[in-house]
Amino acid sequence: MYNWKELLEKVNDGIAAMSFDRKPAELYAPIRYVLSMGGKRIRPVLMLMAYNLYREDVERIFSQALAIEVYHNYTLLHDDLMDRADMRRGVPTVHKKWDSNAAILSGDSMLVMAYHYMMRDCPAGKLGRVLDLFTETALEIGEGLQYDIEFERRNDVGEDEYIEMIRLKTSVLLAAALKIGAVLADAPDSEAYLLYRFGENLGLAFQLQDDYLDVYGNPEVFGKKVGGDILCNKKTYMLINAYRLADAESRDALDFWVNKADGTFNPSEKIDAVTRLYDKIGIRELCDKKIRFYFEEARRVWEQVQLSGERKGPLWDMAVSLMYRES
Amino acid sequence: MYNWKELLEKVNDGIAAMSFDRKPAELYAPIRYVLSMGGKRIRPVLMLMAYNLYREDVERIFSQALAIEVYHNYTLLHDDLMDRADMRRGVPTVHKKWDSNAAILSGDSMLVMAYHYMMRDCPAGKLGRVLDLFTETALEIGEGLQYDIEFERRNDVGEDEYIEMIRLKTSVLLAAALKIGAVLADAPDSEAYLLYRFGENLGLAFQLQDDYLDVYGNPEVFGKKVGGDILCNKKTYMLINAYRLADAESRDALDFWVNKADGTFNPSEKIDAVTRLYDKIGIRELCDKKIRFYFEEARRVWEQVQLSGERKGPLWDMAVSLMYRES
Repeated sequence: MYNWKELLEKVNDGIAAMSFDRKPAELYAPIRYVLSMGGKRIRPVLMLMAYNLYREDVERIFSQALAIEVYHNYTLLHDDLMDRADMRRGVPTVHKKWDSNAAILSGDSMLVMAYHYMMRDCPAGKLGRVLDLFTETALEIGEGLQYDIEFERRNDVGEDEYIEMIRLKTSVLLAAALKIGAVLADAPDSEAYLLYRFGENLGLAFQLQDDYLDVYGNPEVFGKKVGGDILCNKKTYMLINAYRLADAESRDALDFWVNKADGTFNPSEKIDAVTRLYDKIGIRELCDKKIRFYFEEARRVWEQVQLSGERKGPLWDMAVSLMYRES
Repeated sequence: MYNWKELLEKVNDGIAAMSFDRKPAELYAPIRYVLSMGGKRIRPVLMLMAYNLYREDVERIFSQALAIEVYHNYTLLHDDLMDRADMRRGVPTVHKKWDSNAAILSGDSMLVMAYHYMMRDCPAGKLGRVLDLFTETALEIGEGLQYDIEFERRNDVGEDEYIEMIRLKTSVLLAAALKIGAVLADAPDSEAYLLYRFGENLGLAFQLQDDYLDVYGNPEVFGKKVGGDILCNKKTYMLINAYRLADAESRDALDFWVNKADGTFNPSEKIDAVTRLYDKIGIRELCDKKIRFYFEEARRVWEQVQLSGERKGPLWDMAVSLMYRES
């Protein structure tokens, strides 16, 4: 049995060992670049951990673990292009370092490569089931991204809609990573299903945590600047509920900051003011409660998985550490 | 046995019957739009014809035929975005009608849908082989598109490089369509291989024909304006060879037109002048000869397919009609 750190090392070794000897080199350079940016490698490690619940020979599904990381990084590459984000993980994004056509084309090839790795060395008889789940997940993620884009243009996004959007955009990939690991390990269908549901709830808690940390994270460990969502009026769980629950005075104050033209205020002034409004309206507790709700849901599902506590230890520890992360 | 027209009708019916009931509707509207633009549906029909060489129940692989058309249209969608092309088949392209993010995201989902249809109802035991070929083909097409982009920035593109680029960009998909049809029909491996090689050569002839028709096509049937490649100095087979074979005087004249700033000439004046230069240098005959060369190669491979003339009739007729098309 492996712990998180051991599997993370294996994933990083696998990524470092990926060969990009196809031509033209210019098509594959951005792919290599994106994959070398680092990151927590949460999805491939979750897949290996789910597999490791049932089987020891985790190297048997390295290719599938790699596939899910390649896929995830392709979504980041195209997202950054669509968001016109200049930086990721401290370095220029692909469309800044190269250009937008390179980002489109290399991203497209990454998606195809994800399928390539998902199929390569796929344990006998599992190909159809794994690819069906992967494909359905990829469609759902596209749908989540589309909702995300549409919500930016709307002012009446409800909490339920928001939760469904982040479920599609974030949760289903964590869920699929876990389920694919279980399916490849020949776990009973009932448990593969539980692992999917576990991942779905964990993913919701995880994404809400992201919203939370963007406001209340410790700037020294958060990685990106705290308050980024506030500055661009991103319709997060926090902002949606702040509007829903604010009294007339707080709502006016929110409106003031949300509608204030860029350049007419000091960024930290806006971040401080909106954070104080969130505090006053009770958004910090509300978000914290919602994160705990989904984490408890995840735990409830997890407890139904019929394996020994020892067997289940590493994956659970990993889930807890994701919940208590500060970045 | 079906002829081209019957299969085309079946493909068009299949596309018209595709359901887009997933949400959000805004993600799927551009996909429906692109697929409803029409087109010759060459790739799905070729797949059905290859299958029909061996089996009658062509409806068994409709989903795979649809997949290859969805894939092809996804490449057009992203290509038009990368080329900043405003129109296709007489209507605005997706990034003009919607925006570039819609083009990126809907295109991405189309690629995933192509995999979905390729897997759906895939005849037993064929899934791995079909998807491996499809995935390798999609990687090659990305490579061809990258070469195409790079060639635009280079002035020393050789004829061989150009042929390899169009092989990757155009031929391998025709070849893969034919081979997938054969594989799904349980054709002998040797014949599936021959059909691939047949498609590869046919594709080269077909793409060179495109270059040729852009200069020498009949404007009344060509669909797009004759001379488009000349106006934007596209490095086609014609222009590459014109530079290679021109004497000093003709080369100066070519340089004059290629380097003349937009807006300083009447478009038809440039088209006429460059066409006359092509005539003078002997490019028309050269291109015509090259088209015939690849078509003869295709015929040579085709003759090795061990089926009756009657059986082979419809596909061959189709190949001939592609060669003698005027648009």
